[in-house]
Amino acid sequence: MPDHFQLLKTDTGTAARRGRLRTLHGVIETPIFMPVGTQGTVKSLTPAHLREIGAQVILGNTYHLNLRPSSELIAELGGLHKFMGWDGPILTDSGGFQVFSLAKLRDIREDGVAFSSHLDGAKLFLGPKEVMAIQRNLGSDIAMVIDECPPWPCERDACAQAVARSYRWAKQCRELAVESGFLGAGHHVFAIVQGSTFDDLRREAAESLAALDFPGYAVGGVSVGEPEPEMLKQVAATTPFMPADKPRYAMGLGTPPQLLKMIALGVDMFDCVLPSRVARNGLVFTPDGPINLKNEKHRNDPGPIVEGLDNYTCRNFSRAYLRHLIAAGEMLAATLCTIHNLHFYLDLMAQARAHLEAGDFATWHRAWVERYETGAAARVA
Amino acid sequence: MPDHFQLLKTDTGTAARRGRLRTLHGVIETPIFMPVGTQGTVKSLTPAHLREIGAQVILGNTYHLNLRPSSELIAELGGLHKFMGWDGPILTDSGGFQVFSLAKLRDIREDGVAFSSHLDGAKLFLGPKEVMAIQRNLGSDIAMVIDECPPWPCERDACAQAVARSYRWAKQCRELAVESGFLGAGHHVFAIVQGSTFDDLRREAAESLAALDFPGYAVGGVSVGEPEPEMLKQVAATTPFMPADKPRYAMGLGTPPQLLKMIALGVDMFDCVLPSRVARNGLVFTPDGPINLKNEKHRNDPGPIVEGLDNYTCRNFSRAYLRHLIAAGEMLAATLCTIHNLHFYLDLMAQARAHLEAGDFATWHRAWVERYETGAAARVA
Repeated sequence: MPDHFQLLKTDTGTAARRGRLRTLHGVIETPIFMPVGTQGTVKSLTPAHLREIGAQVILGNTYHLNLRPSSELIAELGGLHKFMGWDGPILTDSGGFQVFSLAKLRDIREDGVAFSSHLDGAKLFLGPKEVMAIQRNLGSDIAMVIDECPPWPCERDACAQAVARSYRWAKQCRELAVESGFLGAGHHVFAIVQGSTFDDLRREAAESLAALDFPGYAVGGVSVGEPEPEMLKQVAATTPFMPADKPRYAMGLGTPPQLLKMIALGVDMFDCVLPSRVARNGLVFTPDGPINLKNEKHRNDPGPIVEGLDNYTCRNFSRAYLRHLIAAGEMLAATLCTIHNLHFYLDLMAQARAHLEAGDFATWHRAWVERYETGAAARVA
Repeated sequence: MPDHFQLLKTDTGTAARRGRLRTLHGVIETPIFMPVGTQGTVKSLTPAHLREIGAQVILGNTYHLNLRPSSELIAELGGLHKFMGWDGPILTDSGGFQVFSLAKLRDIREDGVAFSSHLDGAKLFLGPKEVMAIQRNLGSDIAMVIDECPPWPCERDACAQAVARSYRWAKQCRELAVESGFLGAGHHVFAIVQGSTFDDLRREAAESLAALDFPGYAVGGVSVGEPEPEMLKQVAATTPFMPADKPRYAMGLGTPPQLLKMIALGVDMFDCVLPSRVARNGLVFTPDGPINLKNEKHRNDPGPIVEGLDNYTCRNFSRAYLRHLIAAGEMLAATLCTIHNLHFYLDLMAQARAHLEAGDFATWHRAWVERYETGAAARVA
């Protein structure tokens, strides 16, 4: 798919970009946040809810879907889009990250990773061949290569080895995607830049992968336990060496201010379980920082989570009602808080795109982050 | 509200009726099923889902809402409709049934029942004065009187006493509803006919309550553990003595065939937790009886629960997908199965209304029940 990514505008005050990514299931306007649908569902939401909140692309997890119900079954049933009733773009991770974070008894070999399922201990194996076959079965619009994600902190030697292996695996994934006709049919495959805290390794990884001409590139190995300044430093050490004419994706991140800070560093795409996970615990986002709806102070509050925010939850329900649902253990609490939190993220991305178009992204995003962090700090104090 | 109930048609082959009930929040076409929203939410559904599946009226539980978050708080926040974001009619039970089924340490006195909360053991009291005040706070469109619900089986003397006390309480509830302006403002209050398995007591209860001229009447004391033939016998012993020009409501019932059988006995309104409760366990209804989606046979079934049924779940999702969601412990399973089961009930009522209008209800309902019961029996065998 030539010209699948259009760089519509580059910010003058920051490295931020306004772009447009074409996929087999539609266009994605960037910067964008991707709700996470680990097991073939964005937890507690219907696909209709996802459309309503303006989701443009969602994420599916190869590791989980391959364990249950299996990628073969999903293929037999017409692919992941049909299976879960979502006809928009889907990005799937390769499962590599979960092998390193969830699975037991890992054994890294040159052709992939042998591991035991976290569900039942079954012996499994994922390498370039397997992850590309699975993602072909799923019918991903954007497939990710398998990589070796070093822990944080990490020794330089171990990191260099992981970068080298990730490069070899990425190359194999790309070759397999060409041979199988996956790339030719218009699916995308994104490479992943590792390198932990070593700036030179990150640059080397980015440049060597750039030479392979992938349809997109991700910053990997972040959000693995490092503090925020370290995370932002790693992103800043990576994006300058990623091709400017390809979409850039920061994997598994982050808080609302982190998203804006990474957009300013030149990242276009994000995914994170944070907004949906904390929603199920009654934590919801506002422009003045997150609030906990379980708090007694919301008991008789007739106002919405965010006044004037145009989502189903804020249009129709009071903080008092949401607090009641949480106290009563009602499932609807999770649904309504997830709708709000994901819409809050998607709306923030829409605002970012508008300010990039208007040319005032730099000042706007600094003011937004300051209000959010000041409000959050005031609430904790 | 004079002429609040119009009897549009009475069936010739059965005692079934096609009616129209006016309330402050809209018109209810009968026969109708009312989804149960115990704690201010029909579990796992948004009000938008309820509209989509054709819900005309929903039920709220006085006992639960008064314990948590309290009827005073709901009144302060503008009433139950505003609180839960549902602008259609709401019927509230009086809480009496829950006092007899859930609460501990009951003490029945002439002015009401003293009991301990099932949540925290707090000492509480519900009598005619209390239940009418609570339902006024909630802003019910249809309030129920408090009654004494005898257990099954029950001695005749104890039953006669319960019937007599229920009459006195009903009379007081009606007087309070007149004095407070609740009835005058267009809210309805329904009386409840008790009498357990004693036909003469049921007739006496129905006739004495009829003389008090309530806007509607309910068959109470059914669905308390008795077998189906006994339940239908009690309904059949009650409806002939209920006023023909008022809506009739069978409380807490039942399965799809039971609903049709009771419509044939002259009942207009139903509520039951069955369809939503079993949905959360993966049991869903079809015209050939219920099926359990957890069953291995649905693992790769690409078809919907019911082919051609026009609800969100059947239009968009396969049995295989629903089974996957259940196996993965995903909340969306509850939402999608509840949408289906409640729509199945509401659609059945719509079919019943259409066949009453067409004049072939008697033959249609017999054929429907036979297919359902034959299919269910075949599946168990």
